[in-house]
Amino acid sequence: MSAERSSPDRPGPERGEDALVRAVRELVGRADGGSGVRVGIGDDCAVLETSPGTALLAKTDLLIEDVHFRRRWAEPADLGWKAIAVNLSDIASMGGRPRWALIAIACPEDATADEIMAFHEGALALARRHDVTIVGGDTSSSPAGWFVSVMMLGEATAPCLRSTARAGDVLAVTGSLGRSAAGLAVLERDAAPAGVSAAHLAEVTGAHLRPEPRVAEGLWLGAAGGVTAMMDVSDGIGIDLPRLLGESRVGARVDVDRLPIDEPTRAVAAALGADATAWATGGGEDYELLLACAPDAFERLQRGLAERGGARLTRIGEFVAGPPAARWLARGREVTVARGFEHFAGRPAGAGA
Amino acid sequence: MSAERSSPDRPGPERGEDALVRAVRELVGRADGGSGVRVGIGDDCAVLETSPGTALLAKTDLLIEDVHFRRRWAEPADLGWKAIAVNLSDIASMGGRPRWALIAIACPEDATADEIMAFHEGALALARRHDVTIVGGDTSSSPAGWFVSVMMLGEATAPCLRSTARAGDVLAVTGSLGRSAAGLAVLERDAAPAGVSAAHLAEVTGAHLRPEPRVAEGLWLGAAGGVTAMMDVSDGIGIDLPRLLGESRVGARVDVDRLPIDEPTRAVAAALGADATAWATGGGEDYELLLACAPDAFERLQRGLAERGGARLTRIGEFVAGPPAARWLARGREVTVARGFEHFAGRPAGAGA
Repeated sequence: MSAERSSPDRPGPERGEDALVRAVRELVGRADGGSGVRVGIGDDCAVLETSPGTALLAKTDLLIEDVHFRRRWAEPADLGWKAIAVNLSDIASMGGRPRWALIAIACPEDATADEIMAFHEGALALARRHDVTIVGGDTSSSPAGWFVSVMMLGEATAPCLRSTARAGDVLAVTGSLGRSAAGLAVLERDAAPAGVSAAHLAEVTGAHLRPEPRVAEGLWLGAAGGVTAMMDVSDGIGIDLPRLLGESRVGARVDVDRLPIDEPTRAVAAALGADATAWATGGGEDYELLLACAPDAFERLQRGLAERGGARLTRIGEFVAGPPAARWLARGREVTVARGFEHFAGRPAGAGA
Repeated sequence: MSAERSSPDRPGPERGEDALVRAVRELVGRADGGSGVRVGIGDDCAVLETSPGTALLAKTDLLIEDVHFRRRWAEPADLGWKAIAVNLSDIASMGGRPRWALIAIACPEDATADEIMAFHEGALALARRHDVTIVGGDTSSSPAGWFVSVMMLGEATAPCLRSTARAGDVLAVTGSLGRSAAGLAVLERDAAPAGVSAAHLAEVTGAHLRPEPRVAEGLWLGAAGGVTAMMDVSDGIGIDLPRLLGESRVGARVDVDRLPIDEPTRAVAAALGADATAWATGGGEDYELLLACAPDAFERLQRGLAERGGARLTRIGEFVAGPPAARWLARGREVTVARGFEHFAGRPAGAGA
């Protein structure tokens, strides 16, 4: 369907869209037994079989050129990977098992078929790693830039919510923070910063372009007992933590000195004269898990993840009774920290809403 | 997350995105009991309860400014309505019951909060009519134009597929064809065509801007027995029918003179010197149901729909053994017809695919 088509009787001997759909369908392949896919790409809807005793998890996230990435430094295969990663992270944050994805993509008329296939290959590479089947989508031309919208479906027996943290719980985070912001800072520069090793540069740019969502960690944490609330860090804990607090109606104290920041991130910050702590709180896109747990569960959870080769779990503060706001403490003194990214930050909220 | 944010430590006192999400959440309201929604907007994922004994249907469709519509003639509320309608139509085409939707929307920085809320109000108006709960989504700024991606989830006990039509089956379509193309032709002109009544103009432009998907018809047809295959007409039967034939590996003969074209569409075509039949085969966006049924079931299905106040069912041809292609006959002679719309029609299909 198209508004461009002002003359609907234009003949159409080529079959670009159908051919693209066929190519993607071949790439994705037939669904394996056990994938729960009765009908995948090729019909009006995907037809899926859910698992008895589980809740269905559903999430959608956008990736837009010149808003979320630049083509100057992001290859189509990176976009495909990242579009899957950001949605996997949301399923992981509920302790869910990711199962199916639908991919809607619009690209400029000058995008080549090879680029579009590379995008799907990138998406498929990460999807396969987590046993996610791509079961449908939509393809369109775009008047300006790449637009990607992925819907991810998962299942969970007992989803971990944002709204169930309690005063007295420990506040903890997986992995380390600020890596993605460090990677973005490097990618946005024309030249690599001097004095940073190639390994460190590869580490942070990889974290930005091809994040590894904490799917295994989320599944294990959700089932281990003791986790009272969980979310993923997509916009930065400076903005994501207050969201969790708002849903749980509880406050938090964060020990800024304990925020896990790794060596590559510190090295890039030092080379660029940037503030690694600001990246950690306000950078976003780290796709780590932020969680609340019972105080007597923390060490067991930390050890359990380590034993399974999962990400390090760091205690960064605690939940406290009171208004749903975060207090940030550095060497015992309250400080303000960089907040995460928000769209429409300059816009007043809906009139009458 | 954003590439625009080259300085991640920018302070953010306003809370535009969260405020918008809150406003949408208030608009959508709390899910009713029986909606199957355990957690809606506000957490990382929606948490949904599927119905035992049903298959899950999942679909995504894009609406992009200057590809699928122009803001000159489409209001935000129309976009919201249509984004829901096109996805409902896919659920309907499988005989499914639509249940939940996720809405991802990107709009230019100069879009007002009122426009964004009007979009959601339009979406909600149609969603509520079909007992669909909006359970999540994503909101972003866009560098150019409105970009809407809706994911729709539904349920069906025995989904009607595209791949199960048989030689000898009757080919039938609900409602009438070409209305949406007539509406688009009117909307794209600066002045209304002379000699067409206001009622006829409102009829066709309404069909284009606010299509009514055949949800009740699809549900009834899917359960009535005798329907062997079904799909919705989104790109025009000139392109959609061959897709159904390809999936079913069967041919079809279509009687072009029997294509249902209503009076408003004929009146607009006459006034504009356009070909109503070309609109009917190649116009697309009619969101009618195209189906195969056993020959002895057709009259029962036609009568059953009429008795329930549903759309008229018209026999337009039959399925025949042979290669999966359509033969179009007008007064007994084979003719070529306008095909529907395809993206990337000028592009060679994926290298190596």
